[in-house]
Amino acid sequence: MKTFAGLSAIFEEHFSCRHFPTTPSTLYDPAQYILSIGGKRIRPVCVLMGNELFDEIQPDAYNVGIAVELFHNFTLIHDDIMDNAPLRRGKPTLHVKYGTATAILAGDVMFAQAHEYLSKISIERIKPILALFNKTTKEVCEGQQLDMDFEKKDQVHLDDYLQMIALKTSVLLGASMQLGAIIGGAGKRNQQLMYEFGKNLGIAFQLQDDYLDAFGNPDKFGKQVGGDILLNKKTILLLHTFNAANAQQKTELTGLLQSNNPDKVSKMLQLFKLCGADVFARQLKDQYYNEALKNLEEVAVTGSRKKALQQLAEMLLNREN
Amino acid sequence: MKTFAGLSAIFEEHFSCRHFPTTPSTLYDPAQYILSIGGKRIRPVCVLMGNELFDEIQPDAYNVGIAVELFHNFTLIHDDIMDNAPLRRGKPTLHVKYGTATAILAGDVMFAQAHEYLSKISIERIKPILALFNKTTKEVCEGQQLDMDFEKKDQVHLDDYLQMIALKTSVLLGASMQLGAIIGGAGKRNQQLMYEFGKNLGIAFQLQDDYLDAFGNPDKFGKQVGGDILLNKKTILLLHTFNAANAQQKTELTGLLQSNNPDKVSKMLQLFKLCGADVFARQLKDQYYNEALKNLEEVAVTGSRKKALQQLAEMLLNREN
Repeated sequence: MKTFAGLSAIFEEHFSCRHFPTTPSTLYDPAQYILSIGGKRIRPVCVLMGNELFDEIQPDAYNVGIAVELFHNFTLIHDDIMDNAPLRRGKPTLHVKYGTATAILAGDVMFAQAHEYLSKISIERIKPILALFNKTTKEVCEGQQLDMDFEKKDQVHLDDYLQMIALKTSVLLGASMQLGAIIGGAGKRNQQLMYEFGKNLGIAFQLQDDYLDAFGNPDKFGKQVGGDILLNKKTILLLHTFNAANAQQKTELTGLLQSNNPDKVSKMLQLFKLCGADVFARQLKDQYYNEALKNLEEVAVTGSRKKALQQLAEMLLNREN
Repeated sequence: MKTFAGLSAIFEEHFSCRHFPTTPSTLYDPAQYILSIGGKRIRPVCVLMGNELFDEIQPDAYNVGIAVELFHNFTLIHDDIMDNAPLRRGKPTLHVKYGTATAILAGDVMFAQAHEYLSKISIERIKPILALFNKTTKEVCEGQQLDMDFEKKDQVHLDDYLQMIALKTSVLLGASMQLGAIIGGAGKRNQQLMYEFGKNLGIAFQLQDDYLDAFGNPDKFGKQVGGDILLNKKTILLLHTFNAANAQQKTELTGLLQSNNPDKVSKMLQLFKLCGADVFARQLKDQYYNEALKNLEEVAVTGSRKKALQQLAEMLLNREN
């Protein structure tokens, strides 16, 4: 049972090659560019861990891991276009560097390449793996569309927000765990528990991300604290404050959302606290985190094999960066 | 052995349903929109014909046909964004009607849905079908990138142009024929011949398209004659004229490319004829067309079964619309 760091190094050995032909370089160099600027490779490592929980790592796990990572990068390329994002991991986004048309196409060909890796899966496993992968890719698209829809709305229901972050970011984590479990030969119930484990972990992670963006230690968080507030982003903190605010607080909230004053962030943080949004977000995060740990506990495998996954959960959820 | 019209009607029965969930409607209604504005469904009918050449139509042929048609529509959505096209089949393009972000995503989810249909293929055929499909999807992306690259170049070599149109439009026709042949149980050689048949037919069709855009009967062609000339599009006619023009004609050509005079089209047509581009294009088209018919002839199947495919070739290549 290897650690995250150990498996990450092993995956990188399989991943740090060129995944595309050389020509046309106007298409494939951009595609390769986004892969070269790094990334934590969390999802493929989840595939390897999901596999190793039940059995030795099988060759299929690498192909599925690569497919999942390529798919993830495909979504990053297209999301960055949709969100007009200038930077990714501190480097220019693909559409900024190479133009939008090539960025659309580089994303497309990366999705196609993900499927090429999937098509190499052993025949006895290919059907369930494709079924789960295809279901997940559609859900991720749905999540991105909901996220864009919500930007245009004045109010978003909390349940709708949770469903959106589940689709946009968490189902792929859940699927990665389950894909690994399938490769490891897990039965249906264990597979389902692994899916829920990854999905709940993903939701907890996203809620924590919302929290840290407002209340994180600026030295450790690595991003500008208050960035979401400045963008009026509908986070768990803002949505809770909408619900919990009294009439006077609601007026203040509306004013703050329309303001560009230098004290917007500090005033909003104050309001979040007054309305208990910080406590609420932490508690909700803990709820999903604990649910995830319970899912993992219920997997019918001896406890000693679960250590790496427990450590991964801890690493993801007890971070300040 | 059914005709194109017969198979087209049968395919439509399988295709004219909703291919997407209902929610989020902001994503799936746009995706469904592009499918609802029509299309000749040539590629899926090629799958059915390729199948029927060798055996009765198998259920797999419908799933593969639907996947091919969805993939084709996915490329149309994204190409229209890249080309800034306002209209498709006389209707607003998806990005004009719903915005670029949703159009990118609707394309993505259509590609994902194509793979969902592919994942339903019988286990004994799924591997070769995925291999061919994935190879083809990457080639189509390469073709679109080359097309965009060529727009920025002053000169394009004829061979490079032929390679570009092969990748952008013809390999999918070739693949459709071969996918059908695989489902029909054809051997490797027959499969390859079917691929070449479709690919050569596709190249001939594209060359004819270039020709008709300049020299077609405006009443029958259905598009504005001379549209490519007005856009300075690098067609087979323009590329040949570049090569064949003498010094004086080259000067005239350069002048015409920079001009926006009302007589630009008529002057260019005159120059094309003087340089023999019309004859050259027709001959090259015939060459690919005859090669395609030869490929079909060589398929080791009794001649009477080939009628529908011969008629399809004739229909595609002896059109004026």
